[in-house]
Amino acid sequence: MSGTPGSFPWQRGVRAAAALTFDVDAESCALVQDPGSVERMSLMGHQSYGPRVGVPRLLNVLRRHDVRATFFVPGYTAECYPDAVRAIVDDGHEVAHHGYVHESMRGLDEGKEAEYLDRGLKALERVAGVRPTGYRAPWWEMNWHTPKLLAERGFTYDSSLLDDDVPYLMTSSGPGSTELIEIPVDWSLDDWEQFAFYPGWTGSGVIESPLKALEMWSLEATTRHAEGGCFVLTAHPFLSGRPAKANVLDRLLELLRSLDGMWVTSLAEIAAHARPVCGPARTHERLTDVPV
Amino acid sequence: MSGTPGSFPWQRGVRAAAALTFDVDAESCALVQDPGSVERMSLMGHQSYGPRVGVPRLLNVLRRHDVRATFFVPGYTAECYPDAVRAIVDDGHEVAHHGYVHESMRGLDEGKEAEYLDRGLKALERVAGVRPTGYRAPWWEMNWHTPKLLAERGFTYDSSLLDDDVPYLMTSSGPGSTELIEIPVDWSLDDWEQFAFYPGWTGSGVIESPLKALEMWSLEATTRHAEGGCFVLTAHPFLSGRPAKANVLDRLLELLRSLDGMWVTSLAEIAAHARPVCGPARTHERLTDVPV
Amino acid sequence: MSGTPGSFPWQRGVRAAAALTFDVDAESCALVQDPGSVERMSLMGHQSYGPRVGVPRLLNVLRRHDVRATFFVPGYTAECYPDAVRAIVDDGHEVAHHGYVHESMRGLDEGKEAEYLDRGLKALERVAGVRPTGYRAPWWEMNWHTPKLLAERGFTYDSSLLDDDVPYLMTSSGPGSTELIEIPVDWSLDDWEQFAFYPGWTGSGVIESPLKALEMWSLEATTRHAEGGCFVLTAHPFLSGRPAKANVLDRLLELLRSLDGMWVTSLAEIAAHARPVCGPARTHERLTDVPV
Amino acid sequence: MSGTPGSFPWQRGVRAAAALTFDVDAESCALVQDPGSVERMSLMGHQSYGPRVGVPRLLNVLRRHDVRATFFVPGYTAECYPDAVRAIVDDGHEVAHHGYVHESMRGLDEGKEAEYLDRGLKALERVAGVRPTGYRAPWWEMNWHTPKLLAERGFTYDSSLLDDDVPYLMTSSGPGSTELIEIPVDWSLDDWEQFAFYPGWTGSGVIESPLKALEMWSLEATTRHAEGGCFVLTAHPFLSGRPAKANVLDRLLELLRSLDGMWVTSLAEIAAHARPVCGPARTHERLTDVPV
Repeated sequence: MSGTPGSFPWQRGVRAAAALTFDVDAESCALVQDPGSVERMSLMGHQSYGPRVGVPRLLNVLRRHDVRATFFVPGYTAECYPDAVRAIVDDGHEVAHHGYVHESMRGLDEGKEAEYLDRGLKALERVAGVRPTGYRAPWWEMNWHTPKLLAERGFTYDSSLLDDDVPYLMTSSGPGSTELIEIPVDWSLDDWEQFAFYPGWTGSGVIESPLKALEMWSLEATTRHAEGGCFVLTAHPFLSGRPAKANVLDRLLELLRSLDGMWVTSLAEIAAHARPVCGPARTHERLTDVPV
Repeated sequence: MSGTPGSFPWQRGVRAAAALTFDVDAESCALVQDPGSVERMSLMGHQSYGPRVGVPRLLNVLRRHDVRATFFVPGYTAECYPDAVRAIVDDGHEVAHHGYVHESMRGLDEGKEAEYLDRGLKALERVAGVRPTGYRAPWWEMNWHTPKLLAERGFTYDSSLLDDDVPYLMTSSGPGSTELIEIPVDWSLDDWEQFAFYPGWTGSGVIESPLKALEMWSLEATTRHAEGGCFVLTAHPFLSGRPAKANVLDRLLELLRSLDGMWVTSLAEIAAHARPVCGPARTHERLTDVPV
Repeated sequence: MSGTPGSFPWQRGVRAAAALTFDVDAESCALVQDPGSVERMSLMGHQSYGPRVGVPRLLNVLRRHDVRATFFVPGYTAECYPDAVRAIVDDGHEVAHHGYVHESMRGLDEGKEAEYLDRGLKALERVAGVRPTGYRAPWWEMNWHTPKLLAERGFTYDSSLLDDDVPYLMTSSGPGSTELIEIPVDWSLDDWEQFAFYPGWTGSGVIESPLKALEMWSLEATTRHAEGGCFVLTAHPFLSGRPAKANVLDRLLELLRSLDGMWVTSLAEIAAHARPVCGPARTHERLTDVPV
Repeated sequence: MSGTPGSFPWQRGVRAAAALTFDVDAESCALVQDPGSVERMSLMGHQSYGPRVGVPRLLNVLRRHDVRATFFVPGYTAECYPDAVRAIVDDGHEVAHHGYVHESMRGLDEGKEAEYLDRGLKALERVAGVRPTGYRAPWWEMNWHTPKLLAERGFTYDSSLLDDDVPYLMTSSGPGSTELIEIPVDWSLDDWEQFAFYPGWTGSGVIESPLKALEMWSLEATTRHAEGGCFVLTAHPFLSGRPAKANVLDRLLELLRSLDGMWVTSLAEIAAHARPVCGPARTHERLTDVPV
């Protein structure tokens, strides 16, 4: 509880930082929940929209603002849409790890999760020659052993936890303890809860107005900027790559860039900036003696 | 990935296109999910509102704006409400195919789906003398074999996929490959998620303000207009035919007609316009070797 | 399909009509779904709020605007809260029928439903000396035999169907056919979907802002006024009797009374006004030969 | 039904009262519903955010407005995060009782519930030297025997019922009847329904804009102020302690403090103020002879 909540000791004129991150799930997140969805032509098309149409539109938006973003790409997406991954890389954006086929990591033992991680790494390397330094767990679901697995594989940061507002250094407990920068996320800064809907698969049945999301995200941006904090938006090209939603991301970038001292960049750059100044590592320990 | 995402090579002074489409489901979509709902007098009345009250009100709105729209009419609706279908035709609107009784096509084999398609065709022909050229799958649920079935029956376009923003030519893979224009839809441009609610049948329990829907659809309209794209709204007369909702459709038409070069017309006319200029056909292939 | 949809031939300077109706369900609607909820002190208190606190506050609002409203009171509510019913009557409002204990009428045979109707009638008569002329089915769930049961008991109107926007005369089919005025309702004009939430009992988990409801209901009011139609709001004292919600009803009444020629009154008065001018009766027939 | 609904006879220049209350549930409310959630690192972090980050940020907000608030702290939270509890106490705020591990009290017999109450009392005493005078039931779920248990333990007030808008004196029925001030709550004045979402645990999947909540709560504040009533907001540090949500609480406090004669304080102070002037006690009796 040192320092002011939400504030980070940014250096060199940076007052606050912001990253736009895109989870390029495509078909993977639907298939992993129900393999039978491969038979649903409309659903598959709705998902393939992400790499085929959403990514090019979003790359245009980012280019217009001259901003580097982070794209979390499951290995299977990379294999199915190598052109999309190459276009991301060619535009100078970061490609990071997001499982092989957006696996549910909940309850997995260490060996199985390691296997999935390695499979995702191999796919990104083979398809795009990329060795990612960042990881985001599918469905933001980390296990207590995950940080160690990440550090062992040379990852320098993770972005899946919801326990802080600013980057921090974490060390896994137990033997072979290792360190990793965590750049936290927030359900309120995710486009899924605002826009996702597919009958028989996902969503609450409510689809929000993109302008409502813009209002909400803008308040997060100005508040975190005022605190000297960190703004991390999570968006999905099959949702936010569609016309009106990409339009509000364009407006959001307009706002972010207008904020004095707001550094809009990729997570890898934020992690590198944070590493030397973020202070001592925090150890996460699983609760013991839970009284239930 | 040729061209700018969301942009289409419209001809002859057209800068973008828009279509209002109405799925005149009436009782069919409730009955097909639960045949026992025929005993629910209030629910049946809520659905019959569509052809009896909603359609006449919507025809008035369209007449006021001198706009042609597309009405997707299940065969069973046509048989139950022949006057409504004739009124649609008399006003110069397009009547298109939407199943016989809004069947769930998910997981159907080719033979069974063909049977439903033919039953719908016969009903529209017998009741209204209409041979539709357009199709929209109930619940937008296409099977991989559906495009072939449609092309074999002389349909020139489909409007059920969610994999692009503008019309494109698609060809079914396999023997007897055939071509069809696809005019994509979008869950954000559907009135169902905004307004549908009936206890024990459907809906999330949240009913949105029509002005929220107007805000959302207006942003889609101006964004797609600016891109040179295509705006396709899907509305249901038993929902959007009610007073305040028809009022916002009136306002939406006001906006659409005020946009420079925005062609507001039926899907059949958009499909005919698109056919010669939309470039090479895209082949949809079912994913194979899915790793789950 | 005669006349303009949404328009009614109001007489004597009336241009459109509006009624505020209150379903004073109190504990009944919770108990009938789960008798065990009687053990839940907080839930029972949440429901008793309706007759104890909500009704007096709403009576104040109505008095301020000098408006007569309709209160649908289940017999069991009347027995538990006789003072509330008497206060309603003393203020000159209409008390109408809403089942005995807000029974689920869905799928009931004629004999059982008749029993519930009679039990409700007896309770209202015994507690408040009221013989209601109007009926609203709990959960708006009418059976095809319900209109006949109502007419046989001397009811002059029902307000449970969702198949039109204005009052109309309906006749039940079959032997002993009888006539009844129907004053239709609309899910968008019900406070339940906007505000209801109780864990382990009801609600979507989303609670809307009263100002959102006011926006939505105001648009319905002005649209129906412009059409020459009928505006019927359904509210529940345990929800809309709370401070901010009663505040927006106050504002809504302000709006309704400012609309030129808008007659704000009880459903019984609307039914009496409509009876001689509403034209020939409509017969509702259960669909036969349903193809599913 | 004495007095105007929503109005209270405040003394000494107080026109209305407001309290910000924080339920510091942390991991407890997730663990008690699913003990297996202890394995979910991300979920546990999302909950620990409350005492670790949310509480310090909220204490800053309260300090800026020089306002005393009430923090309901489950005993298990106090044991896991003693620093957070001490910081709350050091800032002069009230710490009150909220179960030991946010137990579900629904359907519990008196003995079992007494055990949980005592366990929570002991934890607060041991960790922070606090003997709370106020209680809020986890999930606001009171049993008919709960008031007696509270009075026996020396509690002076409860804040879990939803049956009124202003404080009142209640007496439990039966032998050993005792008195307690009740300060009612309201689902519309709870941040949970607006913001809570965690996959596989809770939430509707809809996350509202903090500005929507601010709009809604502001209307409650001004309405209750105008009535001479009582405004009690319930917030959770793991939700409302996050940047944009804390920002709107800051703005809400701005509004509350600007209202003439609005006393913004802790529940304990409201209870003490209300005790001598709130009139005769109300007896809550469980319904008997329920006709279902």
